Amino acid sequence: MSSEIGPDPATSTPARGPRPRALPDRILMGPGPSNCYPEVTAALGYPIVGHLDPEFLECLDDTGNRLRCAFQTTNLLTFPLSGTGSAGMEASFVNLVEPGDQVVVGVNGLFGERMCEVAHRAGAVVTRVDAPWGVPIDPERLLDAHPSPKVIALVHAETSTGVRNEIGDLARGKGDALLLVDAVTSLGGIEVAADSWGVDIAYSGTQKCLGVPPGLAPLTLSARAQERLVPRCQSWYLDLRLIAGYVESGTRVYHHTAPVTMVRALHAGLGVLIDEGLEATWARHAACGRLLQDGLEALGFTLFAPEGHRLPELTTVWVPERGFPSGLDEPEVRERLLRLYSIEIGNGVGEFAGRVWRIGCMGHTARERNVIMLLQALEELTGMGAA
Amino acid sequence: MSSEIGPDPATSTPARGPRPRALPDRILMGPGPSNCYPEVTAALGYPIVGHLDPEFLECLDDTGNRLRCAFQTTNLLTFPLSGTGSAGMEASFVNLVEPGDQVVVGVNGLFGERMCEVAHRAGAVVTRVDAPWGVPIDPERLLDAHPSPKVIALVHAETSTGVRNEIGDLARGKGDALLLVDAVTSLGGIEVAADSWGVDIAYSGTQKCLGVPPGLAPLTLSARAQERLVPRCQSWYLDLRLIAGYVESGTRVYHHTAPVTMVRALHAGLGVLIDEGLEATWARHAACGRLLQDGLEALGFTLFAPEGHRLPELTTVWVPERGFPSGLDEPEVRERLLRLYSIEIGNGVGEFAGRVWRIGCMGHTARERNVIMLLQALEELTGMGAA
Repeated sequence: MSSEIGPDPATSTPARGPRPRALPDRILMGPGPSNCYPEVTAALGYPIVGHLDPEFLECLDDTGNRLRCAFQTTNLLTFPLSGTGSAGMEASFVNLVEPGDQVVVGVNGLFGERMCEVAHRAGAVVTRVDAPWGVPIDPERLLDAHPSPKVIALVHAETSTGVRNEIGDLARGKGDALLLVDAVTSLGGIEVAADSWGVDIAYSGTQKCLGVPPGLAPLTLSARAQERLVPRCQSWYLDLRLIAGYVESGTRVYHHTAPVTMVRALHAGLGVLIDEGLEATWARHAACGRLLQDGLEALGFTLFAPEGHRLPELTTVWVPERGFPSGLDEPEVRERLLRLYSIEIGNGVGEFAGRVWRIGCMGHTARERNVIMLLQALEELTGMGAA
Repeated sequence: MSSEIGPDPATSTPARGPRPRALPDRILMGPGPSNCYPEVTAALGYPIVGHLDPEFLECLDDTGNRLRCAFQTTNLLTFPLSGTGSAGMEASFVNLVEPGDQVVVGVNGLFGERMCEVAHRAGAVVTRVDAPWGVPIDPERLLDAHPSPKVIALVHAETSTGVRNEIGDLARGKGDALLLVDAVTSLGGIEVAADSWGVDIAYSGTQKCLGVPPGLAPLTLSARAQERLVPRCQSWYLDLRLIAGYVESGTRVYHHTAPVTMVRALHAGLGVLIDEGLEATWARHAACGRLLQDGLEALGFTLFAPEGHRLPELTTVWVPERGFPSGLDEPEVRERLLRLYSIEIGNGVGEFAGRVWRIGCMGHTARERNVIMLLQALEELTGMGAA
C-alpha cells in the first residue's frame, strides 16, 4: 500500500477516540429529516442480527404489519424498500411502466417534476398536468388528461411547497389506470388511506412524519398492481417480484442483504405511531401546524400555501420582500437559528430559494414546545411582531 | 380510518414499552452482516442532524477521505451510495453501460451471475467467462474474451464460494476497457488497491469487513470512468452525475436525502479501520482466517475453496457427505449453534446449499476469541475431531 494515500490531517477529524467537539443537538424543523423518537434511537443501538435470523424475520414481518396499519391497507406486499424515499419513487415507476406506456403526472412542485423525470427514464410517455407551485392539482384535470393511461401519479404532500393534493377523489374516475401516490411527507402526519382511496402503489420515507432516520422507503402494492407488474423490470435492485421473494413470509429467497438496523429502527418508530394511535398522531401534527401557522401570521408573516390546502406537518412562509426589521438577511437568520438555537428550518427550492422558508413539524419534532421555541427565536432574530 | 386494519394481536409484538424478550446478542460469523465495532454502535445513537447541516457535510466529506484511504485511491468521486452493496453493483453498470455495449463478466459464483443479470438489464451484450464455482477466474481468459469491450467486470471476493479472484493482473491488458470490480467482501479485509490496480469503478458493502450495518455501498469512480459515464443513465436514483452534484464539495445540489445516521456509522467504522491501520487490519483478518481454516481441517473438515485462493474473511467448508458423528444433521447444527451459542454461520448457496458452510470472520467479528469459540462449539455439536 502507498503511505501517501490517506485522510488529509489538515481537514480530517481524528479517526477514533473521544470526538473532538460536542455533538450538535438539533431541533430539526426543516423539510426532513425530523428528530427521531427516543424508541428509535434505542433500537439503532440494539446488537446487530443477521438478515436471515429468526428474530429479524419476525421483526420484518411485524414491520409489514405495522406499515399496513399506517397505510390503512391489507396489501400483502407492504415493506420497507432498501433506499430513501426517492428510491421508492423509482421502484414504483420501473415496476409498473414499460417503454411506450402512457403515464399522467400531476405537477405542482419539485416532486411532481421528479416523477416526470423518473417516469421518462423508465420509457413512459408522460402527460403532465401542471398547476403553479403552491396551487393544488384539480383531480378532474388529472383524470381527464388522457383517455387510457396505464398510471396516474400524484404527490400527496408536496414537500417543496407545503401543499396537500387530494388523493381520495381519484379512485372513482381512474378506470383501468393504476394510481401511484407519493406519501413521503404524508404517512403518519395526515391521513393516508391506501385501500379506501383506491391507491395501487404508494411509497413513503422514514425521515418525515415517522420519526426515523432517512434510508428506507416504506412501500405498499395492491393485488391489482401486483398482477400488472412489468414482465421485465429494468432495475434488478428495485425489482418488486424479486424483493417479494424475500419479504413475503415463507419463501425468503435471498435477494440483497436487508438493512437490518434501519428496519428495526423503523419497526420501533411505527410502534410509537401505533401506540399513540393514527388519529391521535394526526391530531398532534394538526395542532402543531395550526399553532405554527397562526403564530407566524401573528408575527406578520404571510403563509405561502393557500388556506384549506396547507399541510400541518410542513409549513411554507414568505420571507418578507422588504427584509426583516432586525436588519438580518434571510441566510443570516437561518444561520443564527442553527448556531445560536440549534434549530434547523429549510430554505425554499427552485425559484423560491431565499424567498420562502419550509418549516417542518414532523414525527417526534411535532411538539408544541418546539413550535413555541421556534416562534420566540424567529421573533428575536427577525424583529417581526414588534410593531 | 377503518378500525379493522391494524397489526394482528396474535402475531404482533407489543408496539412500545419494554421489549417482551431479551435482545439476542449474536456473534455473526455468516457471510455478512458482521458484528459492528463499538464505535459504530455509538455513532448510530448520536442525535440526528440534517443532510445539509454543516456538521453532517463535514462528516460526509471526511467519509470520502476515509474511503479513499480504504480503497487506496485519489478518485474525486468516492462516497457511500444510499443502498446496499447490490445497489452499488447496479449503479456501476447503469452508469457505464448503454444498450448494445459489450461487457465481459467473469463468473465463478453467485455474484458474478448477478453481474451478468444486472448488465443485461442495462442493455449490455454480455460475454461470460465461466469457471466452476470455487475455481478462480483466469485473468488471461477474461482479457481475451472480447477484442474491445467497454467494461470488464469481476468480483474480487466471491461471497458465495470464499474464493479470491486476482484483480491486479487485469490493468496491463485491459486496453480501453473500463475495469469494474465488486469489492463488497474484500474492502477492509484484504488489500484493495484501486489506483495501482487500474480499477475504474469499485463498490463495496458496509456490513462485511468494515464492521458497519448493511445499508450503504461505498463506491469509487476513476476520472477516466467519469469521462465515460453514459449520457443518459436509465436510473435517476443511481445517476452518478446527479449524485456527484451533492457529494462533491462545494456544489451540494439536492438530489435525495442522504441517510445521515448510516453515513455517520460508516464514518466511525472507517475511523476504526484507519486507526488500526489498513495493513494491521488485513493481518488481523488473515490471522483469524488461518486459525479458522487450520482448526476446521484439524477437526477433519475439508475446505471448499482451493489453497492459495482462499479468502481469510470468508471460509467455505464442506459438510461431510457421511453426516456428522454426533448424529445431528446440517440444519440442526446451525440451528443449535444459533440457539445455544448465539453464533450465526452461513449456509451455502445454489447447488451448495446444505453441502457447504460459509463462515465469516469480518470486521469486528474477526477476533481470535470468536474463532476459538466457534471451533469449540462445532466440535461439541458435530462430534468431529473426536476420532
